Amino acid sequence: MQKIALDAMGADNGVAPVIDGLRAALNHKEFKTFLVGDESEIKKHLESLSIKSLKNVEIVPTSDYIKMSEHASAANKRSESSIFKAIALVKNGDADACVSAGHSGATMSLATLQVGRIKGVSRPAICTCMPTITANPSIILDAGANTDCKPEYLYEFAIMGYHYAKSVLKYATPRVGILANGEEDSKGNELTKAVFKMLKDSDILGASFKGNVEGNDIFNGSVDVVVCDGFMGNLVLKASEGVAAAINSILKSEIKKSLLNMIGYSLAKPAFKALKAKIDYAEYGGAPLLGIKKPVIISHGKSNARAMECAIYQALNALDSNICDIIAKAFENKA
Amino acid sequence: MQKIALDAMGADNGVAPVIDGLRAALNHKEFKTFLVGDESEIKKHLESLSIKSLKNVEIVPTSDYIKMSEHASAANKRSESSIFKAIALVKNGDADACVSAGHSGATMSLATLQVGRIKGVSRPAICTCMPTITANPSIILDAGANTDCKPEYLYEFAIMGYHYAKSVLKYATPRVGILANGEEDSKGNELTKAVFKMLKDSDILGASFKGNVEGNDIFNGSVDVVVCDGFMGNLVLKASEGVAAAINSILKSEIKKSLLNMIGYSLAKPAFKALKAKIDYAEYGGAPLLGIKKPVIISHGKSNARAMECAIYQALNALDSNICDIIAKAFENKA
Repeated sequence: MQKIALDAMGADNGVAPVIDGLRAALNHKEFKTFLVGDESEIKKHLESLSIKSLKNVEIVPTSDYIKMSEHASAANKRSESSIFKAIALVKNGDADACVSAGHSGATMSLATLQVGRIKGVSRPAICTCMPTITANPSIILDAGANTDCKPEYLYEFAIMGYHYAKSVLKYATPRVGILANGEEDSKGNELTKAVFKMLKDSDILGASFKGNVEGNDIFNGSVDVVVCDGFMGNLVLKASEGVAAAINSILKSEIKKSLLNMIGYSLAKPAFKALKAKIDYAEYGGAPLLGIKKPVIISHGKSNARAMECAIYQALNALDSNICDIIAKAFENKA
Repeated sequence: MQKIALDAMGADNGVAPVIDGLRAALNHKEFKTFLVGDESEIKKHLESLSIKSLKNVEIVPTSDYIKMSEHASAANKRSESSIFKAIALVKNGDADACVSAGHSGATMSLATLQVGRIKGVSRPAICTCMPTITANPSIILDAGANTDCKPEYLYEFAIMGYHYAKSVLKYATPRVGILANGEEDSKGNELTKAVFKMLKDSDILGASFKGNVEGNDIFNGSVDVVVCDGFMGNLVLKASEGVAAAINSILKSEIKKSLLNMIGYSLAKPAFKALKAKIDYAEYGGAPLLGIKKPVIISHGKSNARAMECAIYQALNALDSNICDIIAKAFENKA
C-alpha cells in the first residue's frame, strides 16, 4: 500500500480542509497516511465530525509549524515542525510521497535539502496544471520555484515536463513549447533563445519540441508542456487568475443591473457551473515539485477539501506512474 | 487644427477598417488627416461607400508598404512605403502625430530613427490599456517594444507611464507598480529588484510608487501603471487574451448543451454585451509609443473600425494633453 506523508498544518484554513480532503480521498482509494500536525487540533476536527479515527491514518504529532509569514530559510532548523517531519518520513523511507498546503518555500527547501534532487537536475520546478479549451489540461513549469534561471534549468524543465505529461497525464506524444513573445524561431529573450538552441541542438525531445509558444497557447490546446522561468510562470499564473476573477466580477455586476439578466443567468447556471469546474484550481489539486527524488506535491495555501483530495490523488498517480524514476532515468541518459 | 498622419496600409483587413474608423472619428472631432496609402485602394473603398472625398482628409499616395511578414529592419530604406511617408510627415512638422495598424516593428523603428527619442529616454515603450473591475483601466508598459531590458529602461518606463496616466488618462494621483512575483519589497527577479531600488532611492514618483505588484493586480484596480520589460508585457497580454478567449469558448460550448442554458443566455445577453464592451481591445484603441518626440499610436493589425476610431482619439488626446512635452520636461529634470 502506498504511504503518503500529509502535512496537516500551515494552510490558510487550518486542518479542516486537509482532513476533509483526506477523508474524501480515502473513500475512493486505498493508501496509508501519516497525518503530521498538532494532535489536539486534528482530534478536535475529527470529534466535530463525530469520527474517532480514520482508516489507515496514523497521526504523527508535532508541536511546531512554519507560518506563511516566516522565511523559508528557517525551515531546515525547525525539526519539530510538521513539514520537517513530513519530509523526514519520506527521506527515511517510511512514506513514499509528501503533500503539503503549508509554506511552499519551506516545502521546496526541505524537499531539496532532505529528500534531495535527482542526479543531473540543477533545480526542481513547480509544475502547474492549466485548463484549456480541450479536454486535456496543459502544464506550465516552472510556476514559481526559481526566480532567475539559467538556460540549462529550462532545458531540464522541458525534459521533466515532457515525462510528466507522458507518464502521469498519459499524453501519448506531449508537445513541448518555450514560452516566448512570438512563435517564430527568432523570437524570445536572451534566456529563451539560449534554451531554444539547446533543445533544438540536442534533439532530446525529437518531434515533441514545438519551439516557441505564446501566452495564449497555454489555454488553446496547441501545446501540452509550457516551459518558462519561475518569475514568468508566476506572472502568467497570477495574471490568468486575475483575468478570470475580473471577468466574473464584471459579469456579476452587469447581471445585477436587470431582472431579466438575473433570470437568464439563473436559467443558464449549469453552463456557468461547468465552466467554473473546468477552471477551478481545486480540480487540478496541487503542483508537483519535479526533480526531487520522491513525489512532493505543493498545494495552494487556500486549498479547500476538494483541492486537498485531488492533491492526494496526484501523489498517488505520481507513485503509480513511477515518474521520479522515469525522470532519473532520462537524466542518466542525458549525463 | 490638429494634423494626424494615418497609415492606411498593412493592417490585416486592408484599408477598410482604417477608413471606416477615420469616418467615425470625423463625425465626433474636427482634425486634419493625411491618409497615407495606395490611392486606388483608398478610392475604391470610398466609392464602395458612395463617398467622393472626406472632409479635411488629404490622400498621400504611396506605392509600397511593409508587409507583416517582412523584417522591421527593412523599413528605414523603404522611403516609398506608407509608414515611412506617414512618419516623415510627422518628422517634417506637416503632421503632429501618427497612427498605424501596419507592421508595428517598422513603425517603432521609423518613429525612433526618424522622429527621434525624447532626450534622456533610453528606449521608447509600448503603453497598453488594460480593463479592470473598476471604471478606470490600468496601463502596462512596456507591452512589447523591448525584449531584454536594463533596469534604467524600466525606471524610465515608470516615469513615462506615470505622466501618461496623469496627463492623458487624467488620473489625479496615478499609482505605479513594478510587475513581480510577489508584493513584498524583497520579491522580484534581478531586473525588477534593481528597478525597485532605483525608484525607491530616487523617490522620483514619491507616494505614487507602490512597490511590487502581481499579475492579478493589473485587473483588480489596485494599481494604475504596471511596469515590466517588453517580454513579460507581451506574455501577460497574450496570456490574458488567451484566458478571456478560453472562458468564452468553454462557456459557449457549455451553453449549447441545453435549451434552458440557451434561453437563459439569450435573456442575459445585455450583461454579456456589457462585459464584452468592457474587455474589448477596440474600445482602448491602439497603444502609444511613449518616449518618442511626437505621439505615435501603434494599433493592432487586426483592428476593426472602432479600434481605429479610438486610436485616432488617442492621438488627439495625446496632442491635447501635450504628453510628449510633459515627458520631455520630466526627463530634463531627471538629467
